[in-house]
Amino acid sequence: MGAVKTKRMPRAVREQQMLDAAVQIFGQRGYMAASMDDIAELAGVSKPLVYLYLNSKDDLFTACIRREATALLAAVRLGVVPELPADRQLWDGLLAFFTHTAGHPDAWRVLHLHARTHGERFAAEVTALRAEIVAFVTGLIAAAARDAHRDPDLPEREVAGLAEALVGAAESLAAWANATPGVTARQTTATLMNFAWAGLGSLMEGRQWTPPPPDQP
Amino acid sequence: MGAVKTKRMPRAVREQQMLDAAVQIFGQRGYMAASMDDIAELAGVSKPLVYLYLNSKDDLFTACIRREATALLAAVRLGVVPELPADRQLWDGLLAFFTHTAGHPDAWRVLHLHARTHGERFAAEVTALRAEIVAFVTGLIAAAARDAHRDPDLPEREVAGLAEALVGAAESLAAWANATPGVTARQTTATLMNFAWAGLGSLMEGRQWTPPPPDQP
Repeated sequence: MGAVKTKRMPRAVREQQMLDAAVQIFGQRGYMAASMDDIAELAGVSKPLVYLYLNSKDDLFTACIRREATALLAAVRLGVVPELPADRQLWDGLLAFFTHTAGHPDAWRVLHLHARTHGERFAAEVTALRAEIVAFVTGLIAAAARDAHRDPDLPEREVAGLAEALVGAAESLAAWANATPGVTARQTTATLMNFAWAGLGSLMEGRQWTPPPPDQP
Repeated sequence: MGAVKTKRMPRAVREQQMLDAAVQIFGQRGYMAASMDDIAELAGVSKPLVYLYLNSKDDLFTACIRREATALLAAVRLGVVPELPADRQLWDGLLAFFTHTAGHPDAWRVLHLHARTHGERFAAEVTALRAEIVAFVTGLIAAAARDAHRDPDLPEREVAGLAEALVGAAESLAAWANATPGVTARQTTATLMNFAWAGLGSLMEGRQWTPPPPDQP
């Protein structure tokens, strides 16, 4: 291990090792309980080198959030083939999302849990990621509505609301799946598709659930 | 105003006034930016009295979270009539939820946003509320599955996943609705029912969305 430690490496490689260690420690222990000593030790570098490269615990945490947010968004985008039918695109996007969150549980805990519970600066980083994912899903739902040719005028506001609902459902399910032993990404995706697609699919075809009249008790 | 300030009131009433003011200030400014001076002024009491009754800013914030979590949960429970059909129960529960979050936007910001972004102690309070709501929704979905008599054996794990998805979708939509001018609680409820019910309804009747085979690209 000493040999590995002292090997000369490009700064970019060292930084990624530090971030790997930081995501693991932050994800498993939370921001407050994570120590820079433990992160340096896990990364196989000295603590001063971590400070030299990443500046502070705050900056290190921010760098973790940004790297993991970018990776998650890239995974979802890569999973979707724009030429395929809308339900297949949704399936592929959700499968990519749940595969990534299941494969990187510490990263998901950083993004979904810890980044939101330690102040407005970190929360803002995650909000930016979320806005990108919602915009992506909104485009997907809007495209699906146009493809269906039945409700090309599905109101913009309704589409925005549906995208919010879908993203909220996916976030919630990812946390649940990672905390529930034996649930695969494929099963989680199937649960959300079963929940969402028949509903979305009906909407696209102009079939709506009819609410009771407002004045009825 | 001086007359109101100096009027003798039972401690319980004064405490509720302080909590009303605190929820408003915490909700609009966040935990860090909220000042005890402003909360005392808005409540029409002296700052020492706030400390005497509620002890500290942390304890005041915790008291706000508990009061508002209890009120939200009570509103949802009260909205649902157990004898009605499953889709009507879901509609009523969601309408009660969105009516409450729309009518108490500061309280919802405290619960959904601020309580989760300022440390693990506050986050744990909200997690407890969320667990109760998920348990309530799980019961509702399980009952609906039994009522439908078509899939009485809908796996427990699937029901738990569906409840997580639904609660996550509702949380996400409530934040979006409160940030989007002109959206009513009824419209938000209709959006989520349209998204969810046809999907849930299909599942209850044993109709599932069929995923592509795993080995296919």
